[in-house]
Parts: sequence; structure tokens; C-alpha cells
Amino acid sequence: MISAALADGTADRPCVFEVFARRLPAGRRYGVVGGTGRLLDRLADFRFTEEEVAVVADSLDERTIRWLRDFRFTGDIDGYREGELYFPGSPVLSVRGGFAECVVLETLVLSVFNHDSAIAAAAARMSSAARGRRIIEMGSRRTHEEAAVAAARASYLAGFHSTSNVEATRRHGVPSAGTSAHAFTLLHTGPDGPDEAAAFRSQVATLGVGTTLLVDTYDITSGVATAVEVAGPELGGVRIDSGDLGVLARQVRDQLDALGAQRTKIVVSGDLDEYAIAALRAEPVDVYGVGTRLVTGSGASTAGMVYKLVEVDGIPVAKRSTHKETLPGAKRAVRYHRASGTAVEEVLFPVSGSAPDDPSLEQRELMIPMLRDGEPVPDLPSLEQSRDHHAAVMVSLPWEGLALSAGDPAIPVRTVAPHGIPS
Amino acid sequence: MISAALADGTADRPCVFEVFARRLPAGRRYGVVGGTGRLLDRLADFRFTEEEVAVVADSLDERTIRWLRDFRFTGDIDGYREGELYFPGSPVLSVRGGFAECVVLETLVLSVFNHDSAIAAAAARMSSAARGRRIIEMGSRRTHEEAAVAAARASYLAGFHSTSNVEATRRHGVPSAGTSAHAFTLLHTGPDGPDEAAAFRSQVATLGVGTTLLVDTYDITSGVATAVEVAGPELGGVRIDSGDLGVLARQVRDQLDALGAQRTKIVVSGDLDEYAIAALRAEPVDVYGVGTRLVTGSGASTAGMVYKLVEVDGIPVAKRSTHKETLPGAKRAVRYHRASGTAVEEVLFPVSGSAPDDPSLEQRELMIPMLRDGEPVPDLPSLEQSRDHHAAVMVSLPWEGLALSAGDPAIPVRTVAPHGIPS
Repeated sequence: MISAALADGTADRPCVFEVFARRLPAGRRYGVVGGTGRLLDRLADFRFTEEEVAVVADSLDERTIRWLRDFRFTGDIDGYREGELYFPGSPVLSVRGGFAECVVLETLVLSVFNHDSAIAAAAARMSSAARGRRIIEMGSRRTHEEAAVAAARASYLAGFHSTSNVEATRRHGVPSAGTSAHAFTLLHTGPDGPDEAAAFRSQVATLGVGTTLLVDTYDITSGVATAVEVAGPELGGVRIDSGDLGVLARQVRDQLDALGAQRTKIVVSGDLDEYAIAALRAEPVDVYGVGTRLVTGSGASTAGMVYKLVEVDGIPVAKRSTHKETLPGAKRAVRYHRASGTAVEEVLFPVSGSAPDDPSLEQRELMIPMLRDGEPVPDLPSLEQSRDHHAAVMVSLPWEGLALSAGDPAIPVRTVAPHGIPS
Repeated sequence: MISAALADGTADRPCVFEVFARRLPAGRRYGVVGGTGRLLDRLADFRFTEEEVAVVADSLDERTIRWLRDFRFTGDIDGYREGELYFPGSPVLSVRGGFAECVVLETLVLSVFNHDSAIAAAAARMSSAARGRRIIEMGSRRTHEEAAVAAARASYLAGFHSTSNVEATRRHGVPSAGTSAHAFTLLHTGPDGPDEAAAFRSQVATLGVGTTLLVDTYDITSGVATAVEVAGPELGGVRIDSGDLGVLARQVRDQLDALGAQRTKIVVSGDLDEYAIAALRAEPVDVYGVGTRLVTGSGASTAGMVYKLVEVDGIPVAKRSTHKETLPGAKRAVRYHRASGTAVEEVLFPVSGSAPDDPSLEQRELMIPMLRDGEPVPDLPSLEQSRDHHAAVMVSLPWEGLALSAGDPAIPVRTVAPHGIPS
């Protein structure tokens, strides 16, 4: 495409591409923008090395090879803040520049957004179901090793408390946390058989009584008794990773209390998702460890976002084939809120126009500038700020928007047609 | 865990860890080992940098920090060949060494296997459904940017023909292929409206008449007519990306034939999975482009493999809590085949024992050596060899094992109990 556009003179035509999801995953009531910060970091050094150009050099003409060598994105990007909610059609990112420089970003932009937004949405549902109890992200082993780091970041964005992925701490500053594995307990096996107490003593000797001991390697009741015997009643926590977690949490709580370990926390893990977390609300659980279901997006492992050309040289354009229509023309987006803060509607309108006025509602502009002439604008939100923003916008959802059951998008998205183009 | 094991003297206890899936994704009849080659590449330079050690240095004692700085895996690894089929319990990888050096590999090993095997299994089902028609992998935009490269590799392993991910060509030698996007056609819009012919002319001028033109941006019938008008009857292919692909493929085939373009291929894409591919068997489709459903594992985006300590100092060990039992002791695996080549059973037995003899069946050893004393053994299979191996073992499945419908694993896995340990 780039070769042909360079040859026919269209490579530098001013274009606007928008990123949006045509629909939310089945039954989901909101999406969460994830990946913006990570994308902007990656764009800062998005170039093609000589070695990379060499791979395609055989099939390309000299002009295209030169273009790839010199490539650097010099356009503008605006978008929804990371952590913001989105709905079907919300233009979460708007990329403006020459055709060729914009089209070459498509795969990176969509990969980052489709992955990170899918994880952020799952994390938001889980965080909301946990109602303030802490969630530790523990899913690294169930997804690609690099996706794991991004998943830890996206889950923190959407309310998780910490991650077992230390690389996410190094790269993104996500707080790290973790417990021990069954292998550590099993390691303490001798000719006379298992020695759970030896494993617990070793862990407590190294990490102190504030550590969390994994009590379900053999028998949970003995495991809890041994844990308190070894660490004393000031033991930080016990983790249960198998069995009927609700029943076990209650039994273990009673046992801990009877042993005087009233402040020892109960951590549960094992294929938890938002529904399992919600089902444990009435049980004495302090911390959830969530893995597989987080990194797989809890049933929706991609956000289904697309990157579509919506405007060429000021002319709105759109694909017209069956079932895949896009709204032509560059758009802006505002969300209307009641005085109480509750969101009621999102409105998309042409960048040249203005948002319809409704004095009874507060208007919030959804897109912020991110790149100008290829350079990041000052004071882009940090991950912590995006996390705070996410927490704030979750509160603005109408109450039914927080339901875990399948339903419609929490608020409608209305498009105000540009002059002459039907909506 | 490593700190505590270093402190209590258990860090170097000889251990065996095994990687296996307790079950296949719901209804799947086989799994495909994916990621072995990629893991061995990553292990070759698996060290902790000073910067990485610094992240955890505050919470670790000096001995552990030194251990991390000096870390290098010095143990042995055996495993199923990449591309091999596996079933519940198959020990697809066996890692042997000191406790600490083995446990530190867990996350990397599982991330690679859980991702790549999930994609390889989905690709195998799709390749099998395509019955020899070519499939191009086009899913990069729907998954994490690094997972995308691994997914392209795993799909090639399991029979796909090529990928649109050029980085997979650079890193792994996967053949690349692709078509143009709707944006390229839309780019050719002027004040007088869309000009599909201009886009097609430009693409043909650059890539020749052998190129594949995307004909569904506006109206498919006009698109096909314009494509043949521009490129002539020697046009390489047309791609249809929306609508009822079966109906459209037949209409487009008739139209191409009537225009004298009998050899122009039809490429279809648009949320295809193994079921959609199978449903198009009777239609005149030449090439499938598969994206989202491949990179999301067609409903099973993680293989659910675990990394379990099975032996310490020669003593078989296993977790004993509810529903998560593992088979203790280091194992070997053989598969029995009829003289016709059809697989009938897989048998796991203790490494110290031997496989039960059955003169009526042929026995195939499933594990090959991969690392010895931390070094790769000579002549490990290349990706091409693994791809050939995969194609060969797919033929060994009993016919019902290839059904797309939900069912049981295609062959049973039987464990021959080690002396004194019940199976």
C-alpha cells in the first residue's frame, strides 16, 4: 500500500484514522480504554532498523525502502484518556497525518489497544465485583510473556492492587506482591515424607510472620494449624488455592479466630473471575488472587477495535459494504452527565461542529491532545493519574451499568450527523 | 521462595518439574505442543541484568541477590517435539535441576507454552477444516504486539501457509503474504467521490496483475468488474471481507469466470474460525484469511498448562488437595500406533521403568532430549521440521479425533503406576 501510494502521489494526502469498537463483547455494558500510555511510549521510538528493512527490501522499490528507513511519525494524535470508559463507536483514538505515515501505525495501535483494553475491561468488572477488597494479579503464566507485563499494567489501571509480575514493577511501577507456590512446600519432603512445617518455618524465617503461607498442599485444616503453630497468631495471611473457596474461607476464618489469629488475612485464588469474586462477597475473604480469567479478558480476550480511515483531504469517507459501515468524517466526543455525576449519553459530532447544548446536563470533553507533529504534548497522564481517572469514571456509570449480567451498553452513543452526511 | 530455599539449604535439591495440561479446553479432542523452539531460544539468554536485580534488591538478602546475578540454568530439559499432539496429563516438558534454578523458569516456560500451544491448537483445527486450501494468518492487530509474532509462528507450525506479520518472517522465517486494506481504496477519493478504479490501477502498477484486490469497499459486483477491467483476466486474486461469504464467493466466482478470469483466486476473510472454514468447503474459495479467531485460540486463548514439582531427590511428590492432584514422580511417555499409523493410546510410566509391551502395536517414544547441563543438544528440530512433524502426527489421529464437534480426547492416556504409588 505504501509503495503504491508513494508511486501514485497519494502517500502524503492528509488523512484522519479513528480507532473504535463497533460493539462491546457480548453482554458487556462498558469498555475501558487501556494501552494509551504504553502506545505513546512505543511510538516515541517507532522506527525501522536496517535489519528490519532488509526483510522486505527484496519486494520493494528503492523509493519505498528509503521511506521506511526515514520513517518517523510526524502527525497528531488525540484520544480518550487511558482508563476512560467507551461504548460502541466511541472514537477512542484519532490519528491525523499523511496516509502512509498513519497506515503504518495501524497494527501497533490496534495490538496495544485490543489487548490492553480487553484486560482493563475484565479487570474493571472484577474490581467492581470485589467492592474494595484487594485483588492481586497472578496471571503471567497463562499468557504470552510480554502480554503478561501489559496485562499486569492494565489490571492496575483498572483497580487491581498489585501484581506478581515483577517486570511490570520495573517497567511501569505497578506494586508487586505474591505468595509461595505448592512446589516450595513439596520441596520440603524427605525420606520420612512431607514436612509442611519445615517449609513454613523456612518461609517465616526469611520473610517474617507477616508473610502469607499456602495452606492447601496437603490438608487445609492441618495446614492452618501448622501455619499458626509455626508463625504464631501474628501470621500475615494464609492462601487457599483449591476446593470450594466459600466454604473453606469460612472454616479457615473460624479456625484462625479460634487459634487467636483474628488478624490473619485469607487470600483465595484458583480460576477466579468477576462472577466467582461476586459470589464470595458474603464470605470472610480479604484478598483475591486472579490469574487465568484476567489475562484472557474473562471471555473476551480482544477488544475488537478497528482503525478506520474516516477522512481524506477534508472529505469524509467510509466503507459501504454490508454490516461493516463506519461513520464517515473526523469526530469529537462529549459525554453528558447529570449534576449528580451520573453519565447519561455520549455524543459524537463533526470536529468542525459543536456539541448540542443541553443546559440541564454537564458536558465533558472526552478527547485530549496526545501528540503534536509527532511529539508528545506536555503533562500526559501518568499510569497513577489514569488509574485515578478510571476510578472516578466508574462512579459515573448508571447503577445498572455495573451489573455483571449480560445487558446493553450502559449509556447510548448518539451521532450528530455532519452537514450532508446522514448519521 | 528462592531466598528461603537458599537459607534452609534446599535450593540445590535435585528436582523434576513437569509441564502438562490437566485437561483440554472444553470439547477439544487434542492439543498441539507449541512454543518449544521459542522457549529454547529464550532460555539461551535467560539471565537477570543488574537493572532487573535492582528492582527486587530492597526486599532480598545479599545471598539471593548474588544468586540472581549469577543465575544461569544448568539443568536438563526433555520434552515432546514441537508440533506433537498432547492429551490430558501428557508431560510435554520435563525440567530437571536444582530447585531454585528450575522454579525460576516456571513463568517463562508456562507463558510460552500456554500461549503458543493455544494458538497452535486453534490453527491445527482450522488447517484441518481447510482441507488443503491455503490459510493466511492475519490476526496481528487483535492481540498483543509481541504475542502477534508468536501467534504467526505457531499458526505456521500448525499448517497455515503464511502470515501478514513481517516480523515473524524476520525472526522465524514464516513466509509473508497479505492483501491491501479498505483504507487504500478509500484513500482514492476525490471531490467527485470514490474512485475504486484509481486505487486498483495504482496497486496493479506497483505489484503487478498477480496481486489480490480487495473488492468489497463499495459494491462487490462493481468491485469485481472494475478489478478485472483494470488488471485483466490474469488478475491474481480478489478478496471479500464482509457479507455472506459463501453466497458471495459463488457469485464472484461466476462473475470472474464470465469475465474470462477463471484463474483469479478468491480470498475470503472476516472473523473466520474452523467452523466457518468448514462451512465454506463446498464454496469456490481458494484462500482463507484468518485473524481474530486464530489469535484468541478460537475460544481457548490459553492452553491451561501447569508446571509441577513431581520429584525431589528421587522421591515422588504431589499436592494432595481437592481436585488438583498431580501424578507424582518423573515420567516418560510413549504412544502406541497400529501398523496403519493410527494412534490408539498414550502411556506414561516412571523414568526408571519401561513401557508395557504390546507386540500388536508400534511404540513411539514421545520425549526427546533438548538441554543437557544447560546447553542445547545438537540438531534440535527447526520450525520447518516441527511443521512437518505436526503434519505427520495429525494423520495419525483416529478419524473421530479430527471432528470439530465437542468430544472426548482422541486417544486415552494411561499411567503405569510406579512401584508403591497408586496411579
